Amino acid sequence: MAGAPRRSAGRRLQLPLLCLFLQGATALLFAVFVRYNHETDASLWHWGNHSNADNEFYFRYPSFQDVHAMVFVGFGFLMAFLQRYGFSSVGFTFLLAACALQWSTLAQGFLHSFHGGHIHVGIESMINADFCAGAVLISFGAVLGKTGPAQLLLLALLEVVLFGLNEFVLLSLLRVRDAGGSMTIHTFGAYFGLVLSRVLYRPGLEKSRHRQGSVYHSDLFAMIGTIFLWIFWPSFNSAPTALGDGQHRTALNTYYSLTASTLSTFALSALVGGDGRLDMVHIQNAALAGGVVVGTASEMMLTPFGALAAGFLAGTVSTLGYKYFTPLLESKFKVQDTCGVHNLHGMPGVLGALLGVLVAGLATHDAYGDGLESVFPLVAEGQRSATSQALHQLFGLFVTLTFASVGGGLGGLLLKLPFLDSPPDSQCYEDQVYWEVPGEHEDEAQGPLRTEEPDTRA
Amino acid sequence: MAGAPRRSAGRRLQLPLLCLFLQGATALLFAVFVRYNHETDASLWHWGNHSNADNEFYFRYPSFQDVHAMVFVGFGFLMAFLQRYGFSSVGFTFLLAACALQWSTLAQGFLHSFHGGHIHVGIESMINADFCAGAVLISFGAVLGKTGPAQLLLLALLEVVLFGLNEFVLLSLLRVRDAGGSMTIHTFGAYFGLVLSRVLYRPGLEKSRHRQGSVYHSDLFAMIGTIFLWIFWPSFNSAPTALGDGQHRTALNTYYSLTASTLSTFALSALVGGDGRLDMVHIQNAALAGGVVVGTASEMMLTPFGALAAGFLAGTVSTLGYKYFTPLLESKFKVQDTCGVHNLHGMPGVLGALLGVLVAGLATHDAYGDGLESVFPLVAEGQRSATSQALHQLFGLFVTLTFASVGGGLGGLLLKLPFLDSPPDSQCYEDQVYWEVPGEHEDEAQGPLRTEEPDTRA
Amino acid sequence: MAGAPRRSAGRRLQLPLLCLFLQGATALLFAVFVRYNHETDASLWHWGNHSNADNEFYFRYPSFQDVHAMVFVGFGFLMAFLQRYGFSSVGFTFLLAACALQWSTLAQGFLHSFHGGHIHVGIESMINADFCAGAVLISFGAVLGKTGPAQLLLLALLEVVLFGLNEFVLLSLLRVRDAGGSMTIHTFGAYFGLVLSRVLYRPGLEKSRHRQGSVYHSDLFAMIGTIFLWIFWPSFNSAPTALGDGQHRTALNTYYSLTASTLSTFALSALVGGDGRLDMVHIQNAALAGGVVVGTASEMMLTPFGALAAGFLAGTVSTLGYKYFTPLLESKFKVQDTCGVHNLHGMPGVLGALLGVLVAGLATHDAYGDGLESVFPLVAEGQRSATSQALHQLFGLFVTLTFASVGGGLGGLLLKLPFLDSPPDSQCYEDQVYWEVPGEHEDEAQGPLRTEEPDTRA
Repeated sequence: MAGAPRRSAGRRLQLPLLCLFLQGATALLFAVFVRYNHETDASLWHWGNHSNADNEFYFRYPSFQDVHAMVFVGFGFLMAFLQRYGFSSVGFTFLLAACALQWSTLAQGFLHSFHGGHIHVGIESMINADFCAGAVLISFGAVLGKTGPAQLLLLALLEVVLFGLNEFVLLSLLRVRDAGGSMTIHTFGAYFGLVLSRVLYRPGLEKSRHRQGSVYHSDLFAMIGTIFLWIFWPSFNSAPTALGDGQHRTALNTYYSLTASTLSTFALSALVGGDGRLDMVHIQNAALAGGVVVGTASEMMLTPFGALAAGFLAGTVSTLGYKYFTPLLESKFKVQDTCGVHNLHGMPGVLGALLGVLVAGLATHDAYGDGLESVFPLVAEGQRSATSQALHQLFGLFVTLTFASVGGGLGGLLLKLPFLDSPPDSQCYEDQVYWEVPGEHEDEAQGPLRTEEPDTRA
Repeated sequence: MAGAPRRSAGRRLQLPLLCLFLQGATALLFAVFVRYNHETDASLWHWGNHSNADNEFYFRYPSFQDVHAMVFVGFGFLMAFLQRYGFSSVGFTFLLAACALQWSTLAQGFLHSFHGGHIHVGIESMINADFCAGAVLISFGAVLGKTGPAQLLLLALLEVVLFGLNEFVLLSLLRVRDAGGSMTIHTFGAYFGLVLSRVLYRPGLEKSRHRQGSVYHSDLFAMIGTIFLWIFWPSFNSAPTALGDGQHRTALNTYYSLTASTLSTFALSALVGGDGRLDMVHIQNAALAGGVVVGTASEMMLTPFGALAAGFLAGTVSTLGYKYFTPLLESKFKVQDTCGVHNLHGMPGVLGALLGVLVAGLATHDAYGDGLESVFPLVAEGQRSATSQALHQLFGLFVTLTFASVGGGLGGLLLKLPFLDSPPDSQCYEDQVYWEVPGEHEDEAQGPLRTEEPDTRA
Repeated sequence: MAGAPRRSAGRRLQLPLLCLFLQGATALLFAVFVRYNHETDASLWHWGNHSNADNEFYFRYPSFQDVHAMVFVGFGFLMAFLQRYGFSSVGFTFLLAACALQWSTLAQGFLHSFHGGHIHVGIESMINADFCAGAVLISFGAVLGKTGPAQLLLLALLEVVLFGLNEFVLLSLLRVRDAGGSMTIHTFGAYFGLVLSRVLYRPGLEKSRHRQGSVYHSDLFAMIGTIFLWIFWPSFNSAPTALGDGQHRTALNTYYSLTASTLSTFALSALVGGDGRLDMVHIQNAALAGGVVVGTASEMMLTPFGALAAGFLAGTVSTLGYKYFTPLLESKFKVQDTCGVHNLHGMPGVLGALLGVLVAGLATHDAYGDGLESVFPLVAEGQRSATSQALHQLFGLFVTLTFASVGGGLGGLLLKLPFLDSPPDSQCYEDQVYWEVPGEHEDEAQGPLRTEEPDTRA
């Protein structure tokens, strides 16, 4: 434990008191505002004349479970690549996401499904809350290892609200299509986190540089995250789309796009690697860019070829970003992006938004038939031309970048409040600041630490 | 391998002979009694006038798969926190659960679905068998590291039968509601294991205390178990409920409850931790208590606020239990509870049963509408008042505690049979007693052990 | 990095150029030939008069996701048992499977669903492509650690085509039933890999023998693979069967078979182990043989008892194979089978094919009723007797063995092309040949390697 400075009582109490306050506040708001919707309320459901098979649960719950696994297993373990930050990566992901699920149920509820003085909840609010948690975790990735858990909870509080607002502007006001969230989730989360990281720039981070890499086993733990994100991404993009061909096509496009980003990532990683060697950082991250880049367009008639091309491009851009742009980002722009979210979520997210502009602009009645109604309702109803829809999509990207940048800036100012508990420069990327940490090996575990504080499990 | 004492041939043969005998016996009983039900039998299904979409498979199989993952991945890895007992934790979970699935198909079949001389099987028997395996694994958690695999198989044999009997009394005789098993699974499994551990009390366990903690990587393996249990718990509680709003509401309530137990666990862990540090034991376990506590009530009209409040309470009680009660349990009550099942399954299970009493007692026709029939059929049909249902629920808790205590006691006597192979006090929590164990690092792995016994894979 | 020889530029470029070429070629073929089918195309789906609930997506997507997890998580981590080959096991599985998914969409598409000049894709082509990837990964297991990634991509290219041809002969010409692929996937993949390994026999492999075993943590990573394969195998076998009772019965049979192979594996492993100890190699692999052995018969009226008996036999044969046959395979037949695919996929696959012969030969109208049409359509329509179907099944096994052997031989010749980048005998089972590898521990990670090449994530 040597080296981890003691914290004052005031700082030590920040996390527990904030957790308790947040839980109390959300519970109160739940009591007043949150109600079962007509598919989860016993009385309302049985009042209608439905077959049980019609319940939305059966159409969306399997996808929800996959999304849920991505948020908690995928993000959590993907960030566990750091040699001494596995507890924090998995644990703070757990805490942040659990908090964001509650909070975004409220924020999204007030904005999207507030009727008769109540927020009505069911499988769709569960999926949407997980999506919002995903955006928060993306931002977390940019500041991983450099922020304390109380700071992160405050961040989540702010980001969830801004996420909801941005989503409201895009989906409800601009009527932009963005099922898998290239804009609302990936672009928003990434640039929010990058601006945040810029504001929190630490010139003295060099003191923790030796802890910033991985060790052999931590890279394998990170691959658990990568692979679960990869396999379930088709469910992520398709979870909120129109039923029937919509979900089916979205999953299929995402599946193809991911295979292509995997191939281009391996190709580029070997090409730019020393002596042709592959880099785990690229494989763990850039191979996933194919899921991000079709977040907007995968519900559209992208065509299987279009999905492959998009995925290929995203994997390429992302790998090159890790190799050449991340170092510049720190040295030139003073953005210390721990997980490289700019490469995995930022650039592929923007590309995905632009791909959405393109594919929306090409939409025709011929290509979509009567299905146009469920993908581009305003175009189907003649209220917008395809070109107009495309321009709205493009405007949605700018709105997102604005919300994300302003939000990240505000978040940075908030987290810089001097009384907030934050690890010193020499203790970044280090679990011991916030966790009881056992030794690395058996013999260490038998040392004084364990004897003095016997495992409370027995 | 030094230190692991050689076992006599008689003891070494116990595991293989018991496995072979059990498999032979269950196979024989399957041949005589077990038949496909009308949804898995080709002839019976096609004789009826169904659409294939009506097959129960499509309503319950995704939930089953999540439950299956919880039993084998969740429980297995959660118990892998011990530094030298990962093979046994994951491996014995695998063995015990596989055995319990077969055996409980028979035990539950004879008690619940024995018609015309046959047990009829399908997706519901698959889910129920997994539930029973879950209870066995909870009891396993209490004696983890202190029992041999042959002992554990005998234990499973006994516990599966008593689980089936208790379940029969509660669900079929008392007509108690307990979809997610706060009583039948968690309370039963926990107190069965605790009484068992009391009977098997080892005064000399101090000799293995140095092996009782975790190491850094073993805590990360355990988090795999935690997170998979956490994300899939909504499926666990909803897997056997009424279709439609029932499954939907149950999943939603469980989801909220778990977010709250996560927040309260982080709060309390930091509050009671040395220097405000979080304890992995709490995060790995107590954060899950929100799933246990709504096992009975989540199918009822608990309200989203009720789910949050219940989860918050469960996480709090569970964390405090790990910190303050588990040491007392050993020192005062001579119960050595390796995984702290009293904190994760025992107290939250009892709280869950009481919550069920409360929510059942508050049930009204107004709140449930025509849905009352599918949650409280006897109340809907006027055969019971809500208060009477509540009292039956309460009586169910006492029955469960009785079955569990008697069962655990019998189990302890059975496992104390002197000829059974059990690890000596100095070899508890040690894989080498039952497994060929490679070195911890490369260089060790190159030592004589590997040279003398080349890996049989090649 | 000492010890890993530098490779020439020509060799270093093989992987990236091959990836880029393959991706370019498949993208081109996709552009020309691949189209959405009537369930993924917006226009076609809405032109028909369907309910969205009828979309095949809702019947097969949950199973697909489980299969997808098996291919990428299951196979990847199962092969990560080697102490210094975890990056390659998980990473090359990722690359090979992603490539195989694209390529087999084309190969299977041309052979099975080429209509009007186009391949039509949807959930069934996604499942079938994953199945083909599974076969490629089985073959990979036989040569794990002894082949470079460029060699493996070429191998996938060849094997995917031969897999498609063999499948076409069996399913379309011979009208053999093989839903879970005892023949088409397991037997084919295993014998393809074994013949391949024979052709690539390395007399000097002794030089890398010290790297061929596991270490403690690598065995736990491998158990992640095992358990995910085990829990999801019911979905694997049932993913492509007839809807309704077909999928339901297949999942049920597979579930029982796996429990039995687990029990027999534990029994046999302890029986043949030194001092009665269990061997992780057996538990990780042979316990899965129950899934392989019912690959053909699980959709048939195998009976629950039949499933248990088959699983028991498979686990027994597989465990004994690891113990006694694998060493002979190397010493007598010069087949170096790294993962023991002969024991997990070869013998159980052949047994599964023979079980299919038996159960098909016993099929009667009495046992299947009107369901005979969906399992054995030719028998139901009177075009074949059950005995004739059985003989066709048997012939299918011989065809498969022939395709696999010829394919493996061709593959071996292809991979022996002298200019292909292959690890030297002294560098087998070693990640450093193809990957940037961090140290094993913190202190190493702080060494010159990390300082010279700072982690590009930040």
